[in-house]
Order: sequence, then structure tokens, then C-alpha cells
Amino acid sequence: MAVSDYIEDLEKWQSEFRHSYPVTVRFSETDAFGHLNNTVSFVYFEQGRINFFKEIGFGEEWFASGGEGIPVTADLHCDYRRQVFFDEQLDVQVKVAEIGNSSMDLHYLITNASGKVCMTGRGRMVQVSRKTGKPIKWSETALEKLNVSRSQ
Amino acid sequence: MAVSDYIEDLEKWQSEFRHSYPVTVRFSETDAFGHLNNTVSFVYFEQGRINFFKEIGFGEEWFASGGEGIPVTADLHCDYRRQVFFDEQLDVQVKVAEIGNSSMDLHYLITNASGKVCMTGRGRMVQVSRKTGKPIKWSETALEKLNVSRSQ
Amino acid sequence: MAVSDYIEDLEKWQSEFRHSYPVTVRFSETDAFGHLNNTVSFVYFEQGRINFFKEIGFGEEWFASGGEGIPVTADLHCDYRRQVFFDEQLDVQVKVAEIGNSSMDLHYLITNASGKVCMTGRGRMVQVSRKTGKPIKWSETALEKLNVSRSQ
Amino acid sequence: MAVSDYIEDLEKWQSEFRHSYPVTVRFSETDAFGHLNNTVSFVYFEQGRINFFKEIGFGEEWFASGGEGIPVTADLHCDYRRQVFFDEQLDVQVKVAEIGNSSMDLHYLITNASGKVCMTGRGRMVQVSRKTGKPIKWSETALEKLNVSRSQ
Repeated sequence: MAVSDYIEDLEKWQSEFRHSYPVTVRFSETDAFGHLNNTVSFVYFEQGRINFFKEIGFGEEWFASGGEGIPVTADLHCDYRRQVFFDEQLDVQVKVAEIGNSSMDLHYLITNASGKVCMTGRGRMVQVSRKTGKPIKWSETALEKLNVSRSQ
Repeated sequence: MAVSDYIEDLEKWQSEFRHSYPVTVRFSETDAFGHLNNTVSFVYFEQGRINFFKEIGFGEEWFASGGEGIPVTADLHCDYRRQVFFDEQLDVQVKVAEIGNSSMDLHYLITNASGKVCMTGRGRMVQVSRKTGKPIKWSETALEKLNVSRSQ
Repeated sequence: MAVSDYIEDLEKWQSEFRHSYPVTVRFSETDAFGHLNNTVSFVYFEQGRINFFKEIGFGEEWFASGGEGIPVTADLHCDYRRQVFFDEQLDVQVKVAEIGNSSMDLHYLITNASGKVCMTGRGRMVQVSRKTGKPIKWSETALEKLNVSRSQ
Repeated sequence: MAVSDYIEDLEKWQSEFRHSYPVTVRFSETDAFGHLNNTVSFVYFEQGRINFFKEIGFGEEWFASGGEGIPVTADLHCDYRRQVFFDEQLDVQVKVAEIGNSSMDLHYLITNASGKVCMTGRGRMVQVSRKTGKPIKWSETALEKLNVSRSQ
């Protein structure tokens, strides 16, 4: 199986990211092989995703008490392309790749201080009702924010 | 400062534990120095504390939705006495050291497969109201469970 | 994109697992949405993978000091199919799906106490030289152990 | 037992910090009670400690391959004074409280965006030989850096 069926052309794919968030590798995130433990990339993806939503003013109601919907992770994928070590300064980049009725596909790119690609990834998330667990459609305003994020 | 002002006589102190829970060191819990990262002992303490409460049937209402009180950690202390490595089989031991009106002091002992002391610790927790944040007194039943745990 | 291109027939796929490891959801692994945080499934996958290798006597040299090769994660994928909550007793199941010259595809299945599917996943790992980072072929003995694990 | 035997006068104690590092609470660091899980404060302490050493140019040899000494955590203590929630912007402040021959006591202060005290803590660390595990004395240069950090 191709490990990157979500990337047709790496250079083009990489050029489409507009939103980037810095993160420094913590010592507690390394493991006994001396590098970043593989499970931590998903912590960085989550942090990037939340920073991205915050930046574009999306999903603020999810974290409000009494909010109707919450975001649920449907799937997550990470390709490890370059080892990462303690104290490296990374950039977590996020973009919206596909937009569904109540879901979206986000893509992730983690680069190091030299701009080299360390991890790439993707994941689908769905907005569901806190009470019923059923999907809730994106509003028009929400859809507009997602679309604007692709060019800014 | 003495690092163990909560232990007068280690042998006596150690002999008073009645409740023990196994845990195996995960690879993701090690760090680049090749041993268990120092922050993880508090994860083990929390797991031991919750297992202990479960075993003695204490605090079940905390995790019920609509429960009035929740447990809050007031302080935590850990003394690191022996390095711990990947895949070690540890025992997390817990006892009630002091009981207040709405709080208690728990003591912790982590031993390895040879029975050697790896970490010791203590911490105070308080039962507070989910709404007001004010302390809630232990009930008679709750106090009895804590006292029984000391001999069984 | 289909989120499960690694599963043709869920029932058949599920019936091929032979190796299972219990894990209980820790409180520190939940998040403010009240359920297991999405990043933790990869901690469970890693723990299952290592338990699996240990059980079949595979890769012991990786953790020995001076060992030539180490396992490197090439990619990881998780599909979240059912929410998981604090204190649930889960089973992490692991099987070898494909074997390459110096790599393998592992599949993962996490079920709850009622046997319901909570997460499924897969990931490729490669054995590389600690010094050069280049792939190291599986030995005949190693290959035999992987093959035996499929029927036992 | 007093929970803060390391603080005589909070205001004076607080005024002695010279080194501060920002951290934002990650969603994966919260728990099902809706606030920061208690175990994470020690992750913040470690990150603050390492940032502090880096800023004053101390202990760089610890992380170099072939370095003789490594830092070992002897004990850690945290007092939880105010609940912390998702996305809060915190400051982790660090100071050297006591200097021994091969050890030191570090104090920690975590404040929120309003400057309110959320956690305080302390911990002793020891420099030991990577090979023998025996303590290694601070050099004159090292001692000077620690002393300078108290006024700058």
C-alpha cells in the first residue's frame, strides 16, 4: 500500500499550506531510542488543528459549556519521514483538504528548522451532537471560514 | 530539607501498605536518558489512587454524572530512589495516612519485581463541590471505608 | 477516501487476530470532552505491538545495548469507531498483515468488554541499522516467528 | 502538615524569580473533570527547568553524546493552588533556591494570564555519572552560572 495516497505531488501539496504553528520537542516526549516517540506526532496534530480553528474563528462553540456540537476524530494517519530529536523547533502546518456536509479532511505537515519534512498526515473529523452523537451540518458561516482559510 | 518528612521509619512505613496494583513501564513512558521519565510516576500515583478507591468502594459518586463532589489534588510529592527502565513490572502501593474533615493524605510506594523501593510519595486530596468549589465533608460511611482499608 | 482500505471484510479480518493484550483506560488519558483522548490509541498500539513481539520472542535484540538494529515506525493509522471512556477494560489485538524484506505491516484491533470494535488501525514498521539508518533484512528465524504468529 | 514548607513569605518568594517561560495548555493535557490533569504540572516543571538551564548555558554537556554526567531528579513537589483549563496561557517560572556540591534545589511558580498563582513547587536534582551513577561535583564555571541566574 502506498503510504501517502493523500499526496499526489509533494511539492504542490506542501505549497498549499497557509497556517503554521511552532512547537518545541519536550524532553518528556522523547523515548529510550533517543528520539521523539511516535505517539507524540498526534499530540502535535491535535494542537495544530486546534490552533488552526482558533485562528480562523471556527468551532468556538465546541468548547463553550452548553454548546450543541463537539468535534469527533474519525480517523488519523501519520507518515514518519525524518527522525526528530529533543529540543528541535518544529512547525506544525494545517490545511483543509476536503469539506463534507458535517465533516472535513485536514492535512498536516511537520517541518524542522531547516524546512525539511519530518511528518505528514491527514485525518477526518466530524461535528456531532453532544446529546445524540449524530452529525450536525456545517453552517454557511462555518463553510465560508473554511474556504477562506485556503487562500489566506 | 529532609526529602522524606512523611516517613519516620522506612521499614515500618512500608509494612503498613495493604493495597497494591501492578503496572508495566511502557516504552512511550521512557525518555532519551533511557529510563522512565520523572513525570510518569505521578501517572502511576493517580492510577494507584483510583484503583485503591475503586477497590474499597470509595468515591464512586465522583465519576457519576450529576455527582455533587469531585476530588481535587491539593499537593503531590515524589522521591525517586531507584531508576526504573522499560518493561519493568512495578507494584504501586497506596495507603491512607491521615484523614481530615474533607481531605486525606495518601502515601504511595512503588516497588520493582525484586521488591526494591523505586519511588515513594505522598499527596493530599480534597473533596470539593463541583459547583461552588468548597470542601464537602466525608460522610460516616466514607470514613468507615477509609478506616477499614488500613487493616485489610 | 475510504477510511479502511486495509479491511476488506470486517468479520473475516477480525477473526484472524490471535494475540490480545488487556489495557484499562487511565483517568489521565481522558480529556475535557469526557472520553479517551484520540492521541492515546497510538500509545495502546505501541504497547500492543511490543507485547506481541515479546510474546513471539521477536526483536529482543532491539532493546539490548549494543544491538545493531532498531524498529522504526514508518506510518500509523487509526480509525475511531466507538467512543471509549474512563476505566473501560479494552483488549488490544495485534496481527502481522504483510511481511517485507526488512519491514512489516501490523494491524490493530481494540475492542471493549462487550467485544464491540472501538478502534481499528494499521502501521508499517521497518528494521533499520542504529548506525547507518539503512534497512536490515529479517533473518530466517525472525521470518519464521512472524509466520508462526499467524496461526497461533 | 504545611504544604509549603519551602515558602516562608509568598510575596517575597515570588519576587525572586527572574526566568519565565510561556506554555499554553493543550487539549490532550486536560482530563474528564474538564481541567488540566494533575500529572501535567511536572511536564511543565521539566520544560521550565530545561529552558532555564539552556538560557543560562548550564548543563549543555548532559545532552551531548559521550557526556560524562546526567541530571537525575531526586524529588519533586507540586502544590495546586488554582485550577487551570484548556488553552490558558501560563508562565512557568524557575529559580535556584539552594546549591549543594553536586545537587541543587529548584523552585517553580506557574502563573496564569492574570498573574494569579496556579501552582508552586520545588525539586532537588543531582548531577551523576552516566557510568557509575555516583554524584559529580559542580565545576566553578557551573556554580558561577547558577549564582548569576539569581540576579539576572
